[in-house]
Amino acid sequence: MKLVIEDDYAALSRTTAAVLAGAMLQDRRVNLSITAGATPAGTYRLLAPLLAARPADLDNVHFYSFDEIPNGTDRGVTRTSLDQQIFGPAGIDETRIHALTLDNADRIRADLRDHGGLDLMLMGLGADCHFCGNMPGTTRYDADIYLYEVHPGLPWYHLIEDIDPAPTRVVTFGFPMVLRARQAVLIVSGAAKAEALAEILTGPIGADRPGTILRTHPNLLLIADRDAAALIEPDGAGSWRRR
Amino acid sequence: MKLVIEDDYAALSRTTAAVLAGAMLQDRRVNLSITAGATPAGTYRLLAPLLAARPADLDNVHFYSFDEIPNGTDRGVTRTSLDQQIFGPAGIDETRIHALTLDNADRIRADLRDHGGLDLMLMGLGADCHFCGNMPGTTRYDADIYLYEVHPGLPWYHLIEDIDPAPTRVVTFGFPMVLRARQAVLIVSGAAKAEALAEILTGPIGADRPGTILRTHPNLLLIADRDAAALIEPDGAGSWRRR
Amino acid sequence: MKLVIEDDYAALSRTTAAVLAGAMLQDRRVNLSITAGATPAGTYRLLAPLLAARPADLDNVHFYSFDEIPNGTDRGVTRTSLDQQIFGPAGIDETRIHALTLDNADRIRADLRDHGGLDLMLMGLGADCHFCGNMPGTTRYDADIYLYEVHPGLPWYHLIEDIDPAPTRVVTFGFPMVLRARQAVLIVSGAAKAEALAEILTGPIGADRPGTILRTHPNLLLIADRDAAALIEPDGAGSWRRR
Amino acid sequence: MKLVIEDDYAALSRTTAAVLAGAMLQDRRVNLSITAGATPAGTYRLLAPLLAARPADLDNVHFYSFDEIPNGTDRGVTRTSLDQQIFGPAGIDETRIHALTLDNADRIRADLRDHGGLDLMLMGLGADCHFCGNMPGTTRYDADIYLYEVHPGLPWYHLIEDIDPAPTRVVTFGFPMVLRARQAVLIVSGAAKAEALAEILTGPIGADRPGTILRTHPNLLLIADRDAAALIEPDGAGSWRRR
Repeated sequence: MKLVIEDDYAALSRTTAAVLAGAMLQDRRVNLSITAGATPAGTYRLLAPLLAARPADLDNVHFYSFDEIPNGTDRGVTRTSLDQQIFGPAGIDETRIHALTLDNADRIRADLRDHGGLDLMLMGLGADCHFCGNMPGTTRYDADIYLYEVHPGLPWYHLIEDIDPAPTRVVTFGFPMVLRARQAVLIVSGAAKAEALAEILTGPIGADRPGTILRTHPNLLLIADRDAAALIEPDGAGSWRRR
Repeated sequence: MKLVIEDDYAALSRTTAAVLAGAMLQDRRVNLSITAGATPAGTYRLLAPLLAARPADLDNVHFYSFDEIPNGTDRGVTRTSLDQQIFGPAGIDETRIHALTLDNADRIRADLRDHGGLDLMLMGLGADCHFCGNMPGTTRYDADIYLYEVHPGLPWYHLIEDIDPAPTRVVTFGFPMVLRARQAVLIVSGAAKAEALAEILTGPIGADRPGTILRTHPNLLLIADRDAAALIEPDGAGSWRRR
Repeated sequence: MKLVIEDDYAALSRTTAAVLAGAMLQDRRVNLSITAGATPAGTYRLLAPLLAARPADLDNVHFYSFDEIPNGTDRGVTRTSLDQQIFGPAGIDETRIHALTLDNADRIRADLRDHGGLDLMLMGLGADCHFCGNMPGTTRYDADIYLYEVHPGLPWYHLIEDIDPAPTRVVTFGFPMVLRARQAVLIVSGAAKAEALAEILTGPIGADRPGTILRTHPNLLLIADRDAAALIEPDGAGSWRRR
Repeated sequence: MKLVIEDDYAALSRTTAAVLAGAMLQDRRVNLSITAGATPAGTYRLLAPLLAARPADLDNVHFYSFDEIPNGTDRGVTRTSLDQQIFGPAGIDETRIHALTLDNADRIRADLRDHGGLDLMLMGLGADCHFCGNMPGTTRYDADIYLYEVHPGLPWYHLIEDIDPAPTRVVTFGFPMVLRARQAVLIVSGAAKAEALAEILTGPIGADRPGTILRTHPNLLLIADRDAAALIEPDGAGSWRRR
C-alpha cells in the first residue's frame, strides 16, 4: 500500500487525474473501472475536457462500472451518475462503456478475462468503510461479482432510500475482482471519512467494515487529503498508526 | 482459478516441473518461493538434475522460503528440507537462496520489493487446509509475514511434535504475500487431501480452514491428481462443486 | 537473451513443450503465435495428446499464425501445416484459431491489441537466418505485418517452389510484432543450422540475415541442441562468441 | 505508438508530468531513466516541488541516467544537468540515483536486471533525430550500452564543442535497452523539431536518423506540441503521414 496525503481536495483531484491520465496513455487497450459519486467529482472535472478534446487519442480506453443500483429506468443509479459526471462530458463512445447490470455478470467477467483484465480501479470509501457496493452486513469476500437483496432494515439503507422506485437488489464487484486489477486506487476526502480511513489502515480485517480488506491488495494507491488523514500518522516502520 | 486434474502423482509432478521450468527460463531475474514436503518431492526429482546440469543457464533464478520452524540448529526445518530436496541436489548457489527466519521479515519484504517481487509461489495443501505456515487457529489473513507462538494445545501440534528441541515460534508468509506473487501454484495429491481440496473449492472462506482464501488469488493454478479430486466435479458453469 | 543448449532434439522438444505448457497454464486468456515446420514437430508430438486430453483446461489459449503462403486453397501452407501438426491432433476449437491471411492484417492487429497482446511467440530459424516469413532480400524491419511479392529470382525461392499453384505473395509478422510478444522463443536444431545460430548470436544486425535482429528482443529464449550450437561457446562475459 | 499532440509547451509539460507521476505512484520499486536538456525543463519544474514536498512518498523511485559525456569533473555533463534540473530541486537521495559512467555499463546492466528492469524511459528527440546518445554516424542498433569515440569531424560535434576539456568518449544506452523499458516516452517541442518528428513517424528506419527505430517499441508514447507536429497529419488508417 502506498498512501499519499494531499493538502486539500483540489490537490487530491489533480493527483488522481494525473494517475488516471498516466494509466490511459498507453499504446494498448486499457481497461478502467471507475467510481461515481462526490469524491471523484473534482478529478472528473479536470479529466473530462481533456478527454473530450482528444477523442482519437484515447480510443484505447474502455470503462467498466463496478456496481449498479437499479432504479426502474434502463440505466441504474451508477450508470446514470457516470454518464453525467464523466462519460457524457468526456464524450466516451458507447462501445467503450461496459456497464454492470443485474444480469450480465457472466458476460462482464468473460469480457474482462478476454480483453486483458482491469488495469486500474478507482474507488471511493464510505464513512462506513464500504467500497464499491460492498456494504456492512451484505459483503461477501469470496465472490468476484455478486447480487444481494436490499431492504429498509439494512444499516446503510438511508444511502438509497430516496431512490424511486426503491431498489430491491444491488450488484457489485467483490474483492476478488479488485484483486485482479493491476492497480487499485482509493480516494478519500474530508473529515467525515477520517475514522473510516484510520480503520482501513489500522483496524482488523472484517466484512462488517468491508474496505479493511483493501490493504491486502498487492498494488493499492491511497490518495487522501489532510482532513481525511487527520487521525493517522506514520508509525516509523513504513506503516501507519492512529494518532 | 485454473484447476488441472492429472491422472496420478507422476503426471502431477511432470506438469508441475514444466510450469516451474517455464517460469525459470526467462531473460530476467526470476524470484520463486517454493514448498518443502512430500507433495513436491516428485517435481524436485525431475527438476534437480536439470538444474544441476546447467548452473549458468539458471543463475537468474532466486529462491525464497515462505516459512520456517526453528529446531535449535542454524537452519530450521523448512530450510533443511529444501536443502535436501532441491537446493543441494540442484546445486543452487547460496547467494540465490533467501531463507526466511524468525528475525528477518523486514529484510525479506524489502528485498522482494526491491528485486521485482515474486514471480511464482509453489505451495502444498494440508489435510486441514493449511498453506505455508498458515494453520487453523493461528492464521492471520491481514499480515504479509508474521510470527506466532506454538504450543501443544494447537490442533495441528502433532505435525511438529517430533522436532527436538520443540519449536516455540513459527514464521510464515501470509496471504497478502501470496497475493503479490504473479502466479500461485497449489499442488494437491492423494485421497487424504480430497476433503481439503473440496473445501478449498467450495467451502466458505475462513481462517479456520486457511487455504479457502487462496481461490481469491488473481492467478491461481491448482494441480491435483485424480485421488485428490475425487470429491469434486465441474458445475457446468465454469466452476466446481462437491460430487 | 537466454540461450539453453540441450543434448539433442528430444531434449530440446521436452524443454520447449514445458515452456509452452507453463505459458498456457494461466488463469487468464493466453495468446500464442506458434511456428509450423520440422523443428517444432517433436514439441507438438508431446503437447498434442496433453491438449487433446483436457479440452476444458486450456480453453483460455488462443493461437495466432504469424505468416501465410497462399496455395490456391482456402487454407494456405502455414495454416494447413499447423492443422496437421497441432490444431487437429490437439483438438483446438476453430474459435480459438486466428489465422493470418493476405487480407486480414488490420483485423489481426486490432484483435491482438484488444485481447491483451501476444504472450509468447515460438519461432524456428532458417539456415539463411530467416524467421517467420522475414526472408533475406524481402525483410522489412519497420513493418509489424506486411505483404511482399515472391518470384523465382529470390535466393530462397527453392523453399516454396514445390507449392502448386505457385504463390505470388506472402504475408508475415515483422519484427515489431515479435517485440510485442512478452516472450520470444526460438528453437534451433541440427548441424545445418549451426552457422545461422552463430550468426544470430555474433554477426552484425542486418535484414539480409533477418534473424540477427532477434537478439535485441527484451525477453528472448533460445533453445538449441548441441549440433546447432557446435560453432559457438561462452565468451566468459555472459555472452557468446564463435569457437 | 501513441502520439498525443498538445497545444503548446506548457500543456506538453503538464501531460508529461502526469505520466511520470502516474508511473511513480506504485506500491513497488519503480525504475525510471529520464533525460536532461531543454525539452523536459517544464516537466521538471512541475514535478520537482511535488517530489521535494513528499520525500517519503516516493522513496520507491530509482533514477538511471541513460548517457554521459565526461567533462573532466567527477560528474559528467548529463549527471550535472540532471542534478540541476531535477535531482537537486526534488531532493532525490543519492542512493536512488544510478548514474551511467564510462566504466560501469556492466554494473548498470546487472543492477537493472536484478531490480525489475526499467518501468519508463523519458527521452527527448534531436533535430538530427538522435535519442539518448545515439547520434547520426555513431549509432549502433545492436548494443544495449556502448561507448564511442568523439572527435571534431562528427556532424553533430557542435553540440558538445563548448565542453571543456573536450570529451573524447561518450557512453549511452542503445535501442535494446530502450526496448526493455515497459514504456518509452518521447517528448518533442517546437518548430525546430518538426522535421525530425515527421521523419520518426514516416521515414525509413536507419541509424543515420537514429530515432526512426523508436517507432518499433511495443509501448511508445510520443508527446508533441503543435509546433513540433506541424508537418504531419493522421493518415485515416490509425497512423500518420506527412502533410
